[in-house]
Amino acid sequence: MLIRSIKEMKQVVKKLKKEGKTIGFVPTMGYLHEGHRSLMRCSKKENQITVVSVFVNPIQFGEGEDLDRYPRDLERDLQVCREEGVDFLFHPKVEEMYPEGYSTYVVVEGLTEGLCGAFREGHFKGVSTVVAKLFNIVQPDRAYFGRKDYQQLIVIKRMVEDLNMDVEVVDCPIVREEDGLALSSRNKYLSPEERRSALSLSKALFRAKELFEAGERDAEKIKEEMRKIIKSYPEVKDIQYIEIVHPHTLKPKKKAEKGDVVALAVFIGNTRLIDNITL
Amino acid sequence: MLIRSIKEMKQVVKKLKKEGKTIGFVPTMGYLHEGHRSLMRCSKKENQITVVSVFVNPIQFGEGEDLDRYPRDLERDLQVCREEGVDFLFHPKVEEMYPEGYSTYVVVEGLTEGLCGAFREGHFKGVSTVVAKLFNIVQPDRAYFGRKDYQQLIVIKRMVEDLNMDVEVVDCPIVREEDGLALSSRNKYLSPEERRSALSLSKALFRAKELFEAGERDAEKIKEEMRKIIKSYPEVKDIQYIEIVHPHTLKPKKKAEKGDVVALAVFIGNTRLIDNITL
Repeated sequence: MLIRSIKEMKQVVKKLKKEGKTIGFVPTMGYLHEGHRSLMRCSKKENQITVVSVFVNPIQFGEGEDLDRYPRDLERDLQVCREEGVDFLFHPKVEEMYPEGYSTYVVVEGLTEGLCGAFREGHFKGVSTVVAKLFNIVQPDRAYFGRKDYQQLIVIKRMVEDLNMDVEVVDCPIVREEDGLALSSRNKYLSPEERRSALSLSKALFRAKELFEAGERDAEKIKEEMRKIIKSYPEVKDIQYIEIVHPHTLKPKKKAEKGDVVALAVFIGNTRLIDNITL
Repeated sequence: MLIRSIKEMKQVVKKLKKEGKTIGFVPTMGYLHEGHRSLMRCSKKENQITVVSVFVNPIQFGEGEDLDRYPRDLERDLQVCREEGVDFLFHPKVEEMYPEGYSTYVVVEGLTEGLCGAFREGHFKGVSTVVAKLFNIVQPDRAYFGRKDYQQLIVIKRMVEDLNMDVEVVDCPIVREEDGLALSSRNKYLSPEERRSALSLSKALFRAKELFEAGERDAEKIKEEMRKIIKSYPEVKDIQYIEIVHPHTLKPKKKAEKGDVVALAVFIGNTRLIDNITL
């Protein structure tokens, strides 16, 4: 069930298509956790075949980011896929995805300028490019993305619509630890003290929602209260951004409305974590 | 056989795919001429179904270029397609191809910097984007491009390979008038005097090939002789470029080799014409 070459993956897909099978696809960077499992389960429910890709995509990491230390464990990922009844794990090589002379990029303008895009230059260009490639290789009927990477989800939806791709992008809820921490492969970086401070993100988001539900609409006031909460945790090194944005345009709002998304990025020690909540 | 909406085109394609039909695709900007006919004939020979698109793609025209006056005649195009036994003519609306909020572009870096790319900013970004969209809508097994737009051909081949698209890009020879002029929808702009001066392009290219075959390898010498020929025609307003390039990298050569491409762009009056020849 492990497929390591693009050619082989394409052949398998061709055969499945001929048999009229529906394909669900879960693109990941591996180090699979409960969040990924929830995507696989959604896909299993809605499709006859489920393909998971594990590919740490170098072109979506900026200089000085964590490409080299990003956690990898293919054996464990294979085990998770087996447990979830995934049909194929696609694990292409970097040299095959980006051979010498590689020159083509998919860019989504506008939506990628704010939030994470303002701090991670070229990140979304790398994301949309690799997802376009993977979609062309796997040709899924449906592709599953977690809402934790909310901006990524919206960028991919926009790309699929704009380029007339035949994929339904399905978004799945954030999966959290019992204490509220959003699952992320990067949580592995956290020391026990940092793990405690990482709770600041979800705590601030839950408080934002509480304030909104109590009638507060002033985005600045909500964000100010969030900042206070986050700064009260000892291992918080930097709040990169806290924003309340329109769920589709990702434009910052002054007056919060139902359906808006509160999103933030915070450095806990050297680890950059993101999270969000829908009002 | 005329299809005006993306949705309808997709439905037709879905049905054809289900029936196991092979699809050949000829993307054009309309005002079809003998060059386009040759592409249709290639497609008819190699595929069960042939789709021609007619779409004057606004995003590949720069400011001050000829988007508004670009020749259009759908009735005539339909007639040509009927004569050639084309199965479907796809003619989408600009508003459906680029609805409000449209944000996604496909860019091929490097290859698009020289030749026409140096003079038509954003042109190839527009070309690769629309072709990616059309490929996703029509899902052809093979797509046919004329070699007259040589840089475009190479850019599209690169895009297809880089993005792992399942399309075979087939290139077809330049079709010329008896006196040598390469066919182009833009030839319609030419006055009788300009039409005579438009011959300068092919005359210079044929001379370049002659020189090469007689043993000349010095690109500068070949180009100098070409310049002299072109300048001897009265309606030549500007030689935008004359280059001898590697057929795949499009990098300019100092020493010409067999297989290299001699390409040029010349203004005849207000009309910009391009042409090329393979050594």
